[in-house]
Amino acid sequence: MKKISILGSTGSIGTQTLDVIRKNPSDFEAVAISANSNVKMILEQIEEFKPKYAVMYEESKAEELKSLLPKGCETEVLSGMEGLKKISSLDEIDVVLTAVVGMIGLVPTMCAIESKKDIALANKETLVTAGELVMKAAKENGVKILPVDSEHSAVFQSLNGENKRDVEKIILTASGGPFRGKKKEDLINITKNEALKHPNWDMGRKISIDSSTLMNKGLEVIEAKWLFGVEAEDIDVVVHPQSIVHSMVQYRDSSVIAQLGCPDMRLPIQYALTYPDRMETDFERLDFRKASQLTFEEPDLETFPCLKLAYECLKAGGTYCAVLNAANEIVVNEFLEDRIGFYDIPKYIKMALDAHESIENATLEQILKIDLDTREYVKKLIDNN
Amino acid sequence: MKKISILGSTGSIGTQTLDVIRKNPSDFEAVAISANSNVKMILEQIEEFKPKYAVMYEESKAEELKSLLPKGCETEVLSGMEGLKKISSLDEIDVVLTAVVGMIGLVPTMCAIESKKDIALANKETLVTAGELVMKAAKENGVKILPVDSEHSAVFQSLNGENKRDVEKIILTASGGPFRGKKKEDLINITKNEALKHPNWDMGRKISIDSSTLMNKGLEVIEAKWLFGVEAEDIDVVVHPQSIVHSMVQYRDSSVIAQLGCPDMRLPIQYALTYPDRMETDFERLDFRKASQLTFEEPDLETFPCLKLAYECLKAGGTYCAVLNAANEIVVNEFLEDRIGFYDIPKYIKMALDAHESIENATLEQILKIDLDTREYVKKLIDNN
Repeated sequence: MKKISILGSTGSIGTQTLDVIRKNPSDFEAVAISANSNVKMILEQIEEFKPKYAVMYEESKAEELKSLLPKGCETEVLSGMEGLKKISSLDEIDVVLTAVVGMIGLVPTMCAIESKKDIALANKETLVTAGELVMKAAKENGVKILPVDSEHSAVFQSLNGENKRDVEKIILTASGGPFRGKKKEDLINITKNEALKHPNWDMGRKISIDSSTLMNKGLEVIEAKWLFGVEAEDIDVVVHPQSIVHSMVQYRDSSVIAQLGCPDMRLPIQYALTYPDRMETDFERLDFRKASQLTFEEPDLETFPCLKLAYECLKAGGTYCAVLNAANEIVVNEFLEDRIGFYDIPKYIKMALDAHESIENATLEQILKIDLDTREYVKKLIDNN
Repeated sequence: MKKISILGSTGSIGTQTLDVIRKNPSDFEAVAISANSNVKMILEQIEEFKPKYAVMYEESKAEELKSLLPKGCETEVLSGMEGLKKISSLDEIDVVLTAVVGMIGLVPTMCAIESKKDIALANKETLVTAGELVMKAAKENGVKILPVDSEHSAVFQSLNGENKRDVEKIILTASGGPFRGKKKEDLINITKNEALKHPNWDMGRKISIDSSTLMNKGLEVIEAKWLFGVEAEDIDVVVHPQSIVHSMVQYRDSSVIAQLGCPDMRLPIQYALTYPDRMETDFERLDFRKASQLTFEEPDLETFPCLKLAYECLKAGGTYCAVLNAANEIVVNEFLEDRIGFYDIPKYIKMALDAHESIENATLEQILKIDLDTREYVKKLIDNN
């Protein structure tokens, strides 16, 4: 029985994690769950999974949740960052699945690592912002960082049984998002609703916008560097619109190992929880009569400059990736609020990067400050326009 | 330094094995080599690689070779099956690479296993004919059977670090051969020269014909059963004309792991010799700008009945696979001699199978007798037509 804390149980990854737990009640238990503000959904989850703890990030929503709990319910309601830190370090849990959106996942993840909990990581902003610190802490505490998103899970699976010294290159696949094949002039005036329509994956709003700009792939490139210890120049991105080949590893003898499957996030979620074993599922199997054509093409960095920005930040090192992530979180939010246009996304990110003075070997406190400063800086830029 | 005996050094796999050794002289040494009758080529190989032993299978050719050896050459020339058995069991070798064509590889392979030598297996007829006996002997002697052909090497690589109990299905890819997409009426009168033109691989004559009939894939299905311990119904064949995905393994959680690469037999050869490590090569790397489209389709069992026959033999068990292989070796040879037509290949194989009375748990002697009897039976059938 694996005992799990889920940070972000009402989002796309969180609900799919609970589906994996629902189907395997003798293997997994949700000891703690958390949500930002969705009281209605977490209440249903409490009734079904009876966790020991439920965290509402927003204080007022925590009070609301408490008042709605049925009589006799033994779930303890916590709130805020203190609540997240507590459920990340409980004695009785084995693994923390971090599926919150954005940089907010960083502090509880560090807390979980220091409490020697394995991390099933679906929160890519954590590694993008503070990859060096997180991986160092994981190593010092003997903790496994198990990737949950489909690309890194694919790389992780393709590395099974191999020696790290034999790795030549990581090849991340990208669907290309909803605007693949389009040019800049086609995209200047697109709306958030067009950007939210991902061709293959049904995901949260933030990651859907990141997919439409290819920033999502940029964040994944940065994440891959930290997870797998490879340099930026040894991480390739190839656009593969069918999302069947989830990613690949090329070895120094020229051999390429790939992981394939139907697009279903429950597979990487479950694998992170069962690794190094695999567990029977009823997920759809690949059928090569249907998946009869797999295509590959180069990403278009002119039309999608966010991917290029991510590579530049990764190569520049220091705290540029923290700025990239913070700026991106703000501009995506502003885009979702219809306050800026599609190409304002890379524009403001670039302005934040240009204004930044990078620090080498930054501490967690320094990184958190840079994150806050960047957010304010970008907000002001937008307000003043 | 890995010391190697190569059975069949003048064929396609043999010469490519020597190329791997040539490029890595501090890692590999060819201690012994062998050929059927190609005196000219083995003489060149002796001069370059200076093996301790060289076997000419044909006695008269061995005499010819001896007379041509340069003065002072220390290579000992042996002949016949005794010669092959000797170089398969030398104290000083670590691994026997079996790249002879046909059932002739069986006895020296068994001999190598009993001498506790690892086997790099490029001779698929050995496992097709006597898979149960060979794998049992390998287990008893603690010997590894390392697959050399591209499909089984791909499966082997896709199994790295995984548990056998998690395997759901093996998916062998097939190029489809030179006649993919053709129908029976197009193929009735084709010639051996058309059948010898493989689209992706430059191979020996026997395997090229086997590829054109899809018998090669049938033999590989049988081989896969023995190598990986899976049942016939859990081995799928999917036609993949580009020969980039070399084969795949589907796991019980629905995940599929695949091995990809440019078609180059030196990769699986080298991997069998370096396993579990990998060694730097200058082989062409996959480039997804070129390999931009991978397609998959079902095999056409009506047009290519040999694949269906192989599945039937595997499911029937007993000694049917030995008969299938022996009959196939004869009819392919007859086809290459222009004595029979393309669809006489499955016809005579089926006649041999129909006439056979299968034995369960046959001994090596019984299998060798069935092999000989089948060859005679099929030859007579053809002579009488």
